[in-house]
Amino acid sequence: MTQLSPTLELAKDLISRRSVTPEDAGCQELMISRLEALGFKIERLPFEEVTNFWARRGDSGPVFCFAGHTDVVPSGPEAHWDHPPFEPVIEEGYLCGRGAADMKGSLAAFVTAVERFIEHHPDHEGSIALLITSDEEGPFVNGTTRVIDHLEARNEKIDWCIVGEPSSTNKLGDIIKNGRRGSLSGSLKVRGIQGHVAYPHLVRNPIHEAAPALAELAATTWDEGNDFFPPTSFQISNINAGTGATNVVPGEVDVAFNFRFSTEVTADELKIRVRDILDKHNLEWDIDWILSGNPFLTAAGDLVDASREAIQAIMGYETELSTSGGTSDGRFIAPTGAQVVELGPCNATIHKINERVRAQDLDDLSSLYENILARLLVAKA
Amino acid sequence: MTQLSPTLELAKDLISRRSVTPEDAGCQELMISRLEALGFKIERLPFEEVTNFWARRGDSGPVFCFAGHTDVVPSGPEAHWDHPPFEPVIEEGYLCGRGAADMKGSLAAFVTAVERFIEHHPDHEGSIALLITSDEEGPFVNGTTRVIDHLEARNEKIDWCIVGEPSSTNKLGDIIKNGRRGSLSGSLKVRGIQGHVAYPHLVRNPIHEAAPALAELAATTWDEGNDFFPPTSFQISNINAGTGATNVVPGEVDVAFNFRFSTEVTADELKIRVRDILDKHNLEWDIDWILSGNPFLTAAGDLVDASREAIQAIMGYETELSTSGGTSDGRFIAPTGAQVVELGPCNATIHKINERVRAQDLDDLSSLYENILARLLVAKA
Repeated sequence: MTQLSPTLELAKDLISRRSVTPEDAGCQELMISRLEALGFKIERLPFEEVTNFWARRGDSGPVFCFAGHTDVVPSGPEAHWDHPPFEPVIEEGYLCGRGAADMKGSLAAFVTAVERFIEHHPDHEGSIALLITSDEEGPFVNGTTRVIDHLEARNEKIDWCIVGEPSSTNKLGDIIKNGRRGSLSGSLKVRGIQGHVAYPHLVRNPIHEAAPALAELAATTWDEGNDFFPPTSFQISNINAGTGATNVVPGEVDVAFNFRFSTEVTADELKIRVRDILDKHNLEWDIDWILSGNPFLTAAGDLVDASREAIQAIMGYETELSTSGGTSDGRFIAPTGAQVVELGPCNATIHKINERVRAQDLDDLSSLYENILARLLVAKA
Repeated sequence: MTQLSPTLELAKDLISRRSVTPEDAGCQELMISRLEALGFKIERLPFEEVTNFWARRGDSGPVFCFAGHTDVVPSGPEAHWDHPPFEPVIEEGYLCGRGAADMKGSLAAFVTAVERFIEHHPDHEGSIALLITSDEEGPFVNGTTRVIDHLEARNEKIDWCIVGEPSSTNKLGDIIKNGRRGSLSGSLKVRGIQGHVAYPHLVRNPIHEAAPALAELAATTWDEGNDFFPPTSFQISNINAGTGATNVVPGEVDVAFNFRFSTEVTADELKIRVRDILDKHNLEWDIDWILSGNPFLTAAGDLVDASREAIQAIMGYETELSTSGGTSDGRFIAPTGAQVVELGPCNATIHKINERVRAQDLDDLSSLYENILARLLVAKA
């Protein structure tokens, strides 16, 4: 049997630990033992049921940080998997198992990248840090955001941050995310007056009253986007009214919706514009708002440049900057002023049955991370 | 203890039989035994689980028919009742129990009215008939409509029909129903393309697409009504889309709606107009339609006149003609060409906990029925 690379060996070891959110299942201690051997100072930062750590090698700036998570989403029915999700195997060139792509492969690639980098550059410039949590897939209350609060409280800053999220689409590094749209959700309730359909003069049908307002919300152009962001989008995900009885006009209708928004608007502006539309239609309404994250953007700078150049040097092609897709913990790090880029493996199978990643991609990813470290933390001759 | 009137005695006897739809629980045999003693010919017409009978006294026309039902709606939690719902009591002048108002009181009032009428007019003109079912509150498949089919098949016609439904609002006979609106229900499904809210270019949101069409349906004037009917009304009773997940755009939205429609439009016209609106909005849709009944109207005639005059003579006030409210089995009888009027006690407590009716009202209702029989079936001197 062929000897596996250190990156694949570590990735398998991490996948075999059943760390479904918010469990860490020993993944972080495994990483810590490798990092301590490299001279990292470790701060374990558990909050409630969430396991986190901050590791740093070096006292001076600039600070390069790798951010990631050891937790994974549930496997779904294990019987539907070709192999048990927490018993990783390499098959036909793919590493298979829950978390292979999101994001235990990235964790392993970064640890081995740092091991090789320090072997060659024990006296690198600045500092290398890792910010690792076990709740990225969960309620994101006691994970990255709490660690950032902890660092901010002592004015410890990150200059450059690579988040190991699977950003790639068709081939490794074809896309890096240099920002994310904001996410603002609303739970809208529109009230009417319940009654029997046979007595329409006694009811006020909340579905009828809400329909033109919903039509207007759906037809509204919220902004045109910009060079980095697509236009802000509004989507209703759920609407429910009625008891099932077909002869009763319901007393209220519940509507859940979500904005993915660009840097051309703010969450507060969106709230005001929604309120204006609802009021224009004379609705009796209330909304519970949840702001999951403001948009963030690293338009340009050393980190974007180093990432692009590393991908060109190692992979031989241009990468594309993108702000599309879902949220990530980058939203908690970017507001501190850090440059943030997401760079990780292909995301086609994440959160699915038979999650997998090309084995070669993890080795290449480790080379990319090492190359980026060299571009940022080695003094130019 | 005061002696109860024959009407109240019979009403109590009927209420004590637990005839929740489609059960008859012996009510019809109790009525039949009284009617046979008066010379009625009885045809028992059970269909599936439903008990029905047709009774007729006389061979010639015109045929006066009393139509009614022995079934009642469920009592709801019996503990919520002041008295057990199937143990009728008279308290503070009210007869209390499930079915007191809808419509065992009317059944009793008609049986005793016929008993007195025949005692005085054993050789009345025409015929007296009863059409009694045990599924008026149910799916109305094997009840009145089947009996009517049976009569139509042998060309046996009803000229005048009083339905014993509780038509009165504030006092006995203040309102009689001389027609009903039609009822047309639709189950609409609008299809889109499901997907993640973060990738709006990959989804087609069926809620967004349906909203302007629903707004237009809700805002449409279907007709202006006429002298007998209020304008046709459209009400959405239920709308449902989404799995609960707030980051997923659902693939379809389900909408249940109902028309109560006047004689100014037909069910087919309404269907076409709905289809035109849905198509105008380019929706991918289908609808299951259920026509519960076409509108019917007895604008004027001997039966309306006799009912009005009887109420004036016995109660001392004018009655009002109305076509409002829900459906009744009159919708199955009117299409045969019969004049149809609904006349029964006050409906304030029907289908509710502590259903009740004024005891005096049942005695007066019996007098009204007798008086109407006399106006229609006794040759004028």
